[in-house]
Amino acid sequence: MRWGHRFRDQRVTTHVALVARAFGASEFLLTDIKDEEVQATVEKIVASWGGRLRFEMGKPWKLVVKKWRRNGGCIVHLTAYGENIETCDVLKRIKTCGKDVLVIVGSQKVPKEFFSPDVSDFNVAVGNQPHSEISSLAVFLDRFYEGKELAHEFEGARMRIMPQKNGKKVVKLGISLI
Amino acid sequence: MRWGHRFRDQRVTTHVALVARAFGASEFLLTDIKDEEVQATVEKIVASWGGRLRFEMGKPWKLVVKKWRRNGGCIVHLTAYGENIETCDVLKRIKTCGKDVLVIVGSQKVPKEFFSPDVSDFNVAVGNQPHSEISSLAVFLDRFYEGKELAHEFEGARMRIMPQKNGKKVVKLGISLI
Repeated sequence: MRWGHRFRDQRVTTHVALVARAFGASEFLLTDIKDEEVQATVEKIVASWGGRLRFEMGKPWKLVVKKWRRNGGCIVHLTAYGENIETCDVLKRIKTCGKDVLVIVGSQKVPKEFFSPDVSDFNVAVGNQPHSEISSLAVFLDRFYEGKELAHEFEGARMRIMPQKNGKKVVKLGISLI
Repeated sequence: MRWGHRFRDQRVTTHVALVARAFGASEFLLTDIKDEEVQATVEKIVASWGGRLRFEMGKPWKLVVKKWRRNGGCIVHLTAYGENIETCDVLKRIKTCGKDVLVIVGSQKVPKEFFSPDVSDFNVAVGNQPHSEISSLAVFLDRFYEGKELAHEFEGARMRIMPQKNGKKVVKLGISLI
């Protein structure tokens, strides 16, 4: 759930969405605002590179949170002020929950309710230093999925990168008609 | 080394610099262009939150690379086209080098020389999917330093965040006169 997007944040918000996709999330929710350009960019990436990332926008964050709780899910708020993922067992506690996880990332200054237990079950810091919501989300998901998300092959891809020591190799994936 | 910055990339480039700092890099080099606003933002963060990140800008990338090689360093280029950090031993090979590492991140489309062994000793992909140079750098450094960089206390900090389960706590650090 990406809160606080403004039109001048288009590039950063797009990067957040691409990180969500590349690091294993099922869904990306852009709350409280609609931005067709961000949506178009993300949907184009999904069309080319595959996967089933759901993209939703415009819903009020309070309704998203309320519905998530009603469905029994757990909410993690990523913030520089939270429990440091490296120096305590917060990630273990999150995983022990065993529930679907909604990760909230904000732009600069989020509503103080995000820090409250009414909204977030966990406030997690990827280190207690300022950096970027993009890096926070990526490292959180990389640790949550223990790196395996980076080995995932995306279904329905029209193109796939073949890793190279030098140079670039992209293969087109076709449909075989038997 | 951040290549390809344009003034419209200010926010993304700033995030790259803050990731470099927060994830343990000693230096951030903005090549081929000067951007005083990015420099000012980063230096303000360093002044408040501590550490000794060196910030340089305006040098041609070819000279940076040449000098790095002359000093016996190793160069890693982060690119979606590279060897996947999760599915092969590229990180182990980089660490076995035992040399200082220059990590190159570009904006959209980098010169093809970056892929050549004349420039990069290693081309590394944080997964072979498009996402963000910010997330690539963060996850690369997090794996390179095995997470320990997130436990680092920055010297000379004027303020420090104290991790909280809920809420925000920041302490001011003063100088004791004995």
